[in-house]
Amino acid sequence: MFPLDQWYVAAFAWELTDKPLARTLLNQPVVLFRAGGQAAALADRCCHRHAPLSCGTVETPGIRCGYHGLLFNATGECVEIPGQANIPKTACVRAYPVEERNHIVWIWMGNSLPTRPAPEHPWHDDPAYAFKGDVYHYKAPYQLIHDNLLDLSHLGYVHVKTIGGNAKIHVNAEMAVTKGPDWVKVVRHMKDSQPPPTYLEAWPFEGRIDRWQEIEFKVTYFLIWTGGMDAGSGDLADPARPGFHMRGFHGITPETETTSFYFWTISSNRNPARPDMVETIHKASAFTFDEDRTIIEAQHANMERFGEAPMVGILVDAAPNRARKIVERLTES
Amino acid sequence: MFPLDQWYVAAFAWELTDKPLARTLLNQPVVLFRAGGQAAALADRCCHRHAPLSCGTVETPGIRCGYHGLLFNATGECVEIPGQANIPKTACVRAYPVEERNHIVWIWMGNSLPTRPAPEHPWHDDPAYAFKGDVYHYKAPYQLIHDNLLDLSHLGYVHVKTIGGNAKIHVNAEMAVTKGPDWVKVVRHMKDSQPPPTYLEAWPFEGRIDRWQEIEFKVTYFLIWTGGMDAGSGDLADPARPGFHMRGFHGITPETETTSFYFWTISSNRNPARPDMVETIHKASAFTFDEDRTIIEAQHANMERFGEAPMVGILVDAAPNRARKIVERLTES
Amino acid sequence: MFPLDQWYVAAFAWELTDKPLARTLLNQPVVLFRAGGQAAALADRCCHRHAPLSCGTVETPGIRCGYHGLLFNATGECVEIPGQANIPKTACVRAYPVEERNHIVWIWMGNSLPTRPAPEHPWHDDPAYAFKGDVYHYKAPYQLIHDNLLDLSHLGYVHVKTIGGNAKIHVNAEMAVTKGPDWVKVVRHMKDSQPPPTYLEAWPFEGRIDRWQEIEFKVTYFLIWTGGMDAGSGDLADPARPGFHMRGFHGITPETETTSFYFWTISSNRNPARPDMVETIHKASAFTFDEDRTIIEAQHANMERFGEAPMVGILVDAAPNRARKIVERLTES
Repeated sequence: MFPLDQWYVAAFAWELTDKPLARTLLNQPVVLFRAGGQAAALADRCCHRHAPLSCGTVETPGIRCGYHGLLFNATGECVEIPGQANIPKTACVRAYPVEERNHIVWIWMGNSLPTRPAPEHPWHDDPAYAFKGDVYHYKAPYQLIHDNLLDLSHLGYVHVKTIGGNAKIHVNAEMAVTKGPDWVKVVRHMKDSQPPPTYLEAWPFEGRIDRWQEIEFKVTYFLIWTGGMDAGSGDLADPARPGFHMRGFHGITPETETTSFYFWTISSNRNPARPDMVETIHKASAFTFDEDRTIIEAQHANMERFGEAPMVGILVDAAPNRARKIVERLTES
Repeated sequence: MFPLDQWYVAAFAWELTDKPLARTLLNQPVVLFRAGGQAAALADRCCHRHAPLSCGTVETPGIRCGYHGLLFNATGECVEIPGQANIPKTACVRAYPVEERNHIVWIWMGNSLPTRPAPEHPWHDDPAYAFKGDVYHYKAPYQLIHDNLLDLSHLGYVHVKTIGGNAKIHVNAEMAVTKGPDWVKVVRHMKDSQPPPTYLEAWPFEGRIDRWQEIEFKVTYFLIWTGGMDAGSGDLADPARPGFHMRGFHGITPETETTSFYFWTISSNRNPARPDMVETIHKASAFTFDEDRTIIEAQHANMERFGEAPMVGILVDAAPNRARKIVERLTES
Repeated sequence: MFPLDQWYVAAFAWELTDKPLARTLLNQPVVLFRAGGQAAALADRCCHRHAPLSCGTVETPGIRCGYHGLLFNATGECVEIPGQANIPKTACVRAYPVEERNHIVWIWMGNSLPTRPAPEHPWHDDPAYAFKGDVYHYKAPYQLIHDNLLDLSHLGYVHVKTIGGNAKIHVNAEMAVTKGPDWVKVVRHMKDSQPPPTYLEAWPFEGRIDRWQEIEFKVTYFLIWTGGMDAGSGDLADPARPGFHMRGFHGITPETETTSFYFWTISSNRNPARPDMVETIHKASAFTFDEDRTIIEAQHANMERFGEAPMVGILVDAAPNRARKIVERLTES
């Protein structure tokens, strides 16, 4: 149903406080908490009477059930049963490998141990950048969100008010699609185009701009690098090009087959002339991603209403279709 | 499940504005809109990725999907795919025959083409009459609404405050039931009776009245002609009799097997002595039909709670039972 | 699914007014009402068209359906059909045996007649005591409430703010469990302990107290006699011991397999020094039972989320397990 041997985003670091956080991930209810400062994740069910551990309290060395007081450490071992000295070996709950990197808490839901470290996202810790984000809940399956992010031709119809702009520019953009065994990359260039409303608010452009979108699908998350520079002021092929850079992080974690979590941040390079740009970008992004959620949830509800029916393919489906093939292969294996 | 080769009410004319209207009819999600002023109905699903067309925009010559911008005309043909010149033949959605007559938008949900024009309801356009109405959503199957309208003995129990009056008058009314292959007609006369509260508010009666109810079941809608005249002032057999006439239109369109739309209007003959009578009647009717909805939804919920169980028949079931036989025959054929 | 040949609490006496009361009990929708002052219970479905009788009106000699006006007496016999003289023998609904004792309305849901009178609860009518209570709806199966009430070790974790107190005191209390064919009794003594917050508010204790909890499981209800006296001021084995006595009544009636009603009262012996003690105790009890409901509903939701999985038993499960065996035997028989 889902690719299992992957690092998925479980939470942002700032979501883990002194209270437990309950979150169902890939159909598995999980409780997230900090044990001695370290992020930890257990199956969200006491082994005694199945009360959710997330109704309990975070205590040294882990989490205590709020019903009969059993205490578990970060490896899921029960270390105290009130009223009895002897703790049975079977008194334990499943622990999930967790890594916290660059303000992101990653979880490994696979049945085997992690085969590689969790991904990095250095822009969250880069002093040249500032970032802000949020967690959205979707009443839609994760792959519909993949489709959406891999086909930015929808910007001209769904997001006219923020990052979209003229529809013709988007559908006629120069586009290159490349791929590997577990990634797809779409690069789109829109030279000499009119900056969309959010760009104008966030950056002091002089006039028309050379605009780029670099979308990387990495199975459980996307890196979407968008931005623009004054037309002709740099080379779109040079990563160190000047102008306005937005480094989007988009973690997409299935909650169930039909619902998902969408963890997003936008990191943007600072510009002294626009001290409020992080807030400006955050507000516009939140509005934009709400628009996406609205159409994707409507799409999903419609698919449920109509049941199975053929879909007519069009040209912009190329990259989404590649991503679907990768997910299909990783799910089977 | 439903008689298919019928004209059903899809909407009132005033519901179709410059925005698309989404409505599931007979289990089929439909989008209604005006293409160049003409009412049109398509399956509410883009053929590309199944987004609801009702989330899109009404544009010449039809409706544009709000996700990737495909444009469809009123016959369901895709006439534009952004970003590509070639439009595949398969890029189309189902169109439904629609007729707009007397402020009612009728739709033909059958698999074959309409075999007859949509019904007329001339009182909506008769200057001697004024009308007002509404659309109600029912959490109950359409046949429970048929039962209700064909057995007006419930007026004395459910509608005491408006159009009911003394229960004994209703259950003892003179009643004649006639029928044809696709209609049932119930005529009830209650001579020399006390006018119910709504009649008194709407019309300047002198005292006791001769009252009539003529209920025609026409498979997908009812015509319910009720009213009263000063006792002895006319002949109940003469359609041109004087007094207070209410021409009720009641379109009942299944949404699903267990939910329905109820489109109703009351047209009443104007009386200069009561300039507010349309509002008076509308308010009382809305209150009355809310009472019906409450008991019918409770009845349906109860049938679901208890499951299958025998029903004990009583005399007033005669007309409802005939209507059920007609629906059964038309559904099988 | 449920032990059937039992008296279950259907309502408190004060819930039966001049309006019908609808309540699903053991999966069977029931309408409760007073016929000539006497509590009565019928299947909540008119035999004509299955409308809920609870939408009707209480009339001599019973209840009249609010749709077509059929009138039923307290034995479920139809005694009037408007519009027809002849009443078919089949026009009747199921009546349930009901007994009203000590402000409690008991119902017998079994297929055979009651084999014994309904239970007494004399403290509701004892002038030395005052009582107050409420009805709670639970989104959880009844046996999870049994488990909760039979294992008061949870007081130290769930109810710290009211009747709990130090967790160690509870888990280390002296405990004796006895049982019969259809009862389980748990007696716990906590000598020389600190009175919990609610005790201090309700009773003028001098300092530390000898505290008792006597919990009797009686299949469809619990008697929970708790209280305390100034340490050393009496004998915990003597029922006439002095101090603060709370006689809890806890009727637990399944609504469905997964939802329940919880009828509770607390009767406490009056103390002139604390005129408000009934209100104090009621408020604390309501707060406490809300805490129980929260954790039990979370436990149930979690069991549904995770599906079947083994549970690890601990020592405090002894009494709950005995109660489960009794219910199992009574359900099979």
